Amino acid sequence: MCRWIAYRGETTALEHYVTEPSHSLISQSIHALESTASVNGDGFGLGWYGTHPEPGLYRELRPAWSDENLRYLCRHLQSHLFFAHVRAATGTPVTRPNCHPFACGRWMFMHNGFVGGWNRLRRQVEALIPDKLYPSRIGTTDSEALFLAIMGAGMNDPVAATAQTLARLAALVGQTEPADRLRFTAALSNGQDLYAFRYAVNDRANTLYYREEANNIVVVSEPLDSEPGTWLSVPENHVLIAAAGERARILPLLYRQREAAE
Amino acid sequence: MCRWIAYRGETTALEHYVTEPSHSLISQSIHALESTASVNGDGFGLGWYGTHPEPGLYRELRPAWSDENLRYLCRHLQSHLFFAHVRAATGTPVTRPNCHPFACGRWMFMHNGFVGGWNRLRRQVEALIPDKLYPSRIGTTDSEALFLAIMGAGMNDPVAATAQTLARLAALVGQTEPADRLRFTAALSNGQDLYAFRYAVNDRANTLYYREEANNIVVVSEPLDSEPGTWLSVPENHVLIAAAGERARILPLLYRQREAAE
Amino acid sequence: MCRWIAYRGETTALEHYVTEPSHSLISQSIHALESTASVNGDGFGLGWYGTHPEPGLYRELRPAWSDENLRYLCRHLQSHLFFAHVRAATGTPVTRPNCHPFACGRWMFMHNGFVGGWNRLRRQVEALIPDKLYPSRIGTTDSEALFLAIMGAGMNDPVAATAQTLARLAALVGQTEPADRLRFTAALSNGQDLYAFRYAVNDRANTLYYREEANNIVVVSEPLDSEPGTWLSVPENHVLIAAAGERARILPLLYRQREAAE
Amino acid sequence: MCRWIAYRGETTALEHYVTEPSHSLISQSIHALESTASVNGDGFGLGWYGTHPEPGLYRELRPAWSDENLRYLCRHLQSHLFFAHVRAATGTPVTRPNCHPFACGRWMFMHNGFVGGWNRLRRQVEALIPDKLYPSRIGTTDSEALFLAIMGAGMNDPVAATAQTLARLAALVGQTEPADRLRFTAALSNGQDLYAFRYAVNDRANTLYYREEANNIVVVSEPLDSEPGTWLSVPENHVLIAAAGERARILPLLYRQREAAE
Repeated sequence: MCRWIAYRGETTALEHYVTEPSHSLISQSIHALESTASVNGDGFGLGWYGTHPEPGLYRELRPAWSDENLRYLCRHLQSHLFFAHVRAATGTPVTRPNCHPFACGRWMFMHNGFVGGWNRLRRQVEALIPDKLYPSRIGTTDSEALFLAIMGAGMNDPVAATAQTLARLAALVGQTEPADRLRFTAALSNGQDLYAFRYAVNDRANTLYYREEANNIVVVSEPLDSEPGTWLSVPENHVLIAAAGERARILPLLYRQREAAE
Repeated sequence: MCRWIAYRGETTALEHYVTEPSHSLISQSIHALESTASVNGDGFGLGWYGTHPEPGLYRELRPAWSDENLRYLCRHLQSHLFFAHVRAATGTPVTRPNCHPFACGRWMFMHNGFVGGWNRLRRQVEALIPDKLYPSRIGTTDSEALFLAIMGAGMNDPVAATAQTLARLAALVGQTEPADRLRFTAALSNGQDLYAFRYAVNDRANTLYYREEANNIVVVSEPLDSEPGTWLSVPENHVLIAAAGERARILPLLYRQREAAE
Repeated sequence: MCRWIAYRGETTALEHYVTEPSHSLISQSIHALESTASVNGDGFGLGWYGTHPEPGLYRELRPAWSDENLRYLCRHLQSHLFFAHVRAATGTPVTRPNCHPFACGRWMFMHNGFVGGWNRLRRQVEALIPDKLYPSRIGTTDSEALFLAIMGAGMNDPVAATAQTLARLAALVGQTEPADRLRFTAALSNGQDLYAFRYAVNDRANTLYYREEANNIVVVSEPLDSEPGTWLSVPENHVLIAAAGERARILPLLYRQREAAE
Repeated sequence: MCRWIAYRGETTALEHYVTEPSHSLISQSIHALESTASVNGDGFGLGWYGTHPEPGLYRELRPAWSDENLRYLCRHLQSHLFFAHVRAATGTPVTRPNCHPFACGRWMFMHNGFVGGWNRLRRQVEALIPDKLYPSRIGTTDSEALFLAIMGAGMNDPVAATAQTLARLAALVGQTEPADRLRFTAALSNGQDLYAFRYAVNDRANTLYYREEANNIVVVSEPLDSEPGTWLSVPENHVLIAAAGERARILPLLYRQREAAE
């Protein structure tokens, strides 16, 4: 059960969102509130877009709270679209390649959730990754496999690709009796548009909030400060779409999923 | 505010004390109970005596809970006298040399506590380390400096050396108005005898418990299981002496300290 | 192109073979002689058998030459059968799970070599791992995949299982024009018997030497000292079998492989 | 014996100097040419100035050649004045705080060299650090101690402060018979001006080269490419001063040192 934050808006230093708020992601790494895992100390990562079309990544297996580099980078890196993630591992090793975000070409992804019965389903999920993307699987997490499966589903319509992949996942976790659970609360971006998903099968979905001010939107696992009225919850099984230069829209994901599955 | 465990007795695999108990040191690393810092994720260490007169050390800056090596070592290492420590840093960096235990020749030391006003007092504490031991200062913690100061005070009588050093520390932290605090709950050994100290100046001392069964004694920051009746508390400002082959004795440290200071 | 050492014989401290010799594995980590990669600084590992039926592992992503823990462990760990390995990565990330040796139940394995065209062949090699062993794939190297494929081929006859797996590999690398290369110089053990393989397809095999004295045998990538007359080379495409309590035998592997393939 | 590079000029991505050249600093980390230590695998660091008056730092104890984060950062970080350093440790532990560059307020420093007899002289060198800067000593290297001693000598005239500190060092290393050696090839900056020193006592100085083109200057331990005619050597016991917006000047350091000592 990880914690993350995604930002799209005016170019800003990452520190204003990652390290400075009263309940910043860094403070969530050692003491999260709305999570079953209160400690998220199994590595962390930053991903950001700048002038280069592909995102930059800084991922490290130490806890975020004691990483000196992270504080320097959050002060010095400026971006119009960035992700930050603190990890609570659910079985796979604590390595840099298993830390979020993941990048593939222009795309970047991070995840809070899990595929239940991963040991049983891993091969079938990995089989969703097309051959040409399989060399991009440099870690061993369920999250990275989901990302590459989504990438392989065709990124012309990223929401449809995600919905289609989730429909396949829903079928996989439903094979057993009792059924396995799936939780998928994730962010996806191409450097222009930001997509955030809140979804679950056979389980409650992990929390997801956002705050929109002028052209800036922040999407988070849990609020960064105690002004709760300003944070809106994304409903379960919905997707938030914050396209470049547009206000965020919240759409039902189940509908899209059903549509995709047909 | 760290957590630690010290063992002296029959040769045994470390896992029986470090990883297996219901509230083992590993579980304390992610969720300590009797501590102001409930997470002790700033590195950890093992120290143990075998056939070689000098102890072995395994220290690592990752959290103990996610370290695969630690589980293998606790299963395979057997020792009649060992230390294990999980760290919650109080200002100095998270590096291996700043992890406990510390070793110097045949001696080994670990600590839970702090020297208040360390930035102001550091030079004066380091000045207590004799020149010939100063090359052994490979880290930057207050704990390592205290250890080397004790080592320099003459180890023919390790309790007197510790009491003398603590008397000097008490004088240093008392220089200011308001006075600084000192907390010192530490274990010391030469591979035969085990000493455990619980002491504080201008503050409450950190907790210290022990359990003695036949020839085995375990000394801990907090009980390893929920059989609380079997755990005895070491009183504040006392030292526990578990000499080789003898029952543990609890002696007042203040008396020895006063004596040493005169 | 990695470097490794395997020992089977009288119980001894690892330091006599890993850290002390004039051209020890540690010195090979920073300056190997008979290797295309003179620096083997992409992590290292120890694996050893003790009283527990499963081996212990210590793997770390730092270079071996600067790891303080490694020196302590080599001094304090004693074993009748151990492996040590320094890594020069050939494309997969520098993580602990990608460091050798690998363990699976009672078995332990390490490797010097590579599967050419890994990005193309990875899926087919991973498909050789049976479902029940796939959860044991915690890293992403070709070496670990080969180990689990061998394990899956049935360990009643480990040489036959290895030969069978190599025959399958030989078929895979031979699919393309020009053919890919395969180098496989590996050690395998169950805690009693030691097997060392030297094999290649479409390429020269990596070097492999051994020295046998009384009941002790050491198998190495390159000699540990400059007494070259005492080191014997294992011929290409042969296997060295040092069964518990027996003298080493050298057998042709191609013959066994052909046999296995039939 | 480390390797480093310093840049001052037009704002540029770090990759053009740190990772891309044919003999880049990264390639020097695994195979330096003009150095007694051909492997510089004991950690590395980046330091750069941006819009914030204090520099950013990224320091890591892994070898530079296998660090994925470093490649991302060199692509995405842009700066008008940056340092990069790969370390070959000369006795102090491989920790992040022992990696170069070091920062103190607006100032940044990195070093290639050593103080001979460091175990004997360490206390005397640390005594050159004024009390108010002693909390900034977070590592244990001779290099960091030299930097803080220089900082304490008054930064109104950084060359005079360095010369004065070196004069004191020269006196310290000259106390013994035979005299100890001192090698000091270092870079210093406040974000506007770049200073590079090449100095030695009782020894040859480490190499130092620079290339100046238009308003850009690069100062390096060894040339980054095989266009040797374009690289000029800084003479021993000289300082290169590249003040903001000015051409570089080379001045004798001995003279300044003598002056400072008087």
